[in-house]
Amino acid sequence: MPRVLPMEHQGNLDSLFSPKSIAVIGASNRQGSVGRAAFTNILLNEYTGTVYPVNPKEHSISGVRAYPSVLDLPETVDLAVVIVPAPVVPRVVEEAGQKGVKGLVIISAGFKEVGPDGAELERQIFSIAQKYSMRMIGPNCLGVINADPIVRLNASFASGMPLEGSIAFASQSGALGEAVLDYASGENIGFSKFISMGNKADVNENDILEYLRTDPMTKVILLYIEDIIDGRKFVDTVSRVTEEKPIIAVKAGVSPEGAKAASSHTGALAGSDEAYNAILKQSGVTANRAVLRSHKEQATSRSA
Amino acid sequence: MPRVLPMEHQGNLDSLFSPKSIAVIGASNRQGSVGRAAFTNILLNEYTGTVYPVNPKEHSISGVRAYPSVLDLPETVDLAVVIVPAPVVPRVVEEAGQKGVKGLVIISAGFKEVGPDGAELERQIFSIAQKYSMRMIGPNCLGVINADPIVRLNASFASGMPLEGSIAFASQSGALGEAVLDYASGENIGFSKFISMGNKADVNENDILEYLRTDPMTKVILLYIEDIIDGRKFVDTVSRVTEEKPIIAVKAGVSPEGAKAASSHTGALAGSDEAYNAILKQSGVTANRAVLRSHKEQATSRSA
Repeated sequence: MPRVLPMEHQGNLDSLFSPKSIAVIGASNRQGSVGRAAFTNILLNEYTGTVYPVNPKEHSISGVRAYPSVLDLPETVDLAVVIVPAPVVPRVVEEAGQKGVKGLVIISAGFKEVGPDGAELERQIFSIAQKYSMRMIGPNCLGVINADPIVRLNASFASGMPLEGSIAFASQSGALGEAVLDYASGENIGFSKFISMGNKADVNENDILEYLRTDPMTKVILLYIEDIIDGRKFVDTVSRVTEEKPIIAVKAGVSPEGAKAASSHTGALAGSDEAYNAILKQSGVTANRAVLRSHKEQATSRSA
Repeated sequence: MPRVLPMEHQGNLDSLFSPKSIAVIGASNRQGSVGRAAFTNILLNEYTGTVYPVNPKEHSISGVRAYPSVLDLPETVDLAVVIVPAPVVPRVVEEAGQKGVKGLVIISAGFKEVGPDGAELERQIFSIAQKYSMRMIGPNCLGVINADPIVRLNASFASGMPLEGSIAFASQSGALGEAVLDYASGENIGFSKFISMGNKADVNENDILEYLRTDPMTKVILLYIEDIIDGRKFVDTVSRVTEEKPIIAVKAGVSPEGAKAASSHTGALAGSDEAYNAILKQSGVTANRAVLRSHKEQATSRSA
């Protein structure tokens, strides 16, 4: 099966992190659903823009007028957050493109990580996004958070808004991302941005590092990755970014078990430990080797 | 100055207590404003209907798309909650009537309680409400709360939603009403409804008692009044209601100081203690005389 290697887009990522308006496609009133969490996290964390729920079966979601489709919204929106089941995603992405939406955060799972059919679906949605020049985070991600008080956006199903701070955290694993946010909250550690990258069908670590390089709120970048989309570009990007801001990176999959977990998790082809170490060392990334060693030692002591 | 004696309406009060949709006219993003509290109290307490903010200067309020006027809403609404300055109220009430709104909760102050000009303004808005057969609570009130889980409406600027319970509480004083809700919350005492009656330009204690008589969630009625709009009707109403549910009433203004405070508070003409006692006794109201006596003793001991 060939890797999906996204073509480079020219559009910047502002529509993803600082949208003036948002549609939550698949917003729900059902207690405990992701569609409810994703919508109420935007609504209840004092987002400074306008958020519309999209759900063809409900008149309102959490008290807010719902629309059957993004095409029915009274205005176009900068960002669509998508939580509908995977087979429906191509249609709603097509509609978002028709409406003039600029960015997509695809939370829905059921793509590359589940096998060839999912990978085909993922290629489809990426191709539709490209057709309309939409930038896309995900699919199969937890969402994004921008703690900048000008925006105050929690477009994720991670509960609560992190404290405002100067650390940007991009994670390929949503679960690990959420665990770190929870821990940080208990320690009063603040964040500027949180990005769950998911399957990285379009936006990947290179795009995000480049975006964070010029983000005035971000002083330190924390990166958790399971694979690197484009090693050469990664070295270039990281070298440029680390001239301005430190990057602390953790690469999962250093033990054979970890590599296997990473592989099934997002469909990533986890490379060898040595290759990544070389890349990261070459590009001036901090702390990764120490963290890797400690992970390795843990793996060794557990297997002993 | 003649008293404003409202004509009787035939419409019931369902649009006030169980609206399917609401416009908050004067909803605001300003921290600490009543317009912000009134809107977010509906939005954040899991109201089961649809709520629209109306504000001509903002694109969205608390993340929800705002409309310049009630006339611009994408549908008519059952209830309009009004928080705009007094001189603007006649215009927005007229627009609500044109849109087909059925009920009004006028939180705005600056009416009968401030003097002849305010009383004239109050007559105006009552007359407009009548023209469109809209029922109206207020003006100069804190709002209404319906704790019924089918509705879950906090259309007031009292913070938080009371626990669900079987006590309905109608209060002519918003401040006392809020103090009682706060106290009850600390004691885990629940409510079915809370009604701040304000100036009672239209809906008064008689309408509310009659409504509560048939409200299945209400088992006990708590009433705080500073004046009685229509003594004869009050006796009739209370006699009918107390056959089904107990009423606990407190009448303010029994000491000369209290009478003076009550008079300035809502422009009410506080009657003599003896007359009210006779009315309440005659109509089977519980506990009022004991409470009155204790108030009197406090007043006496303070002035001694």
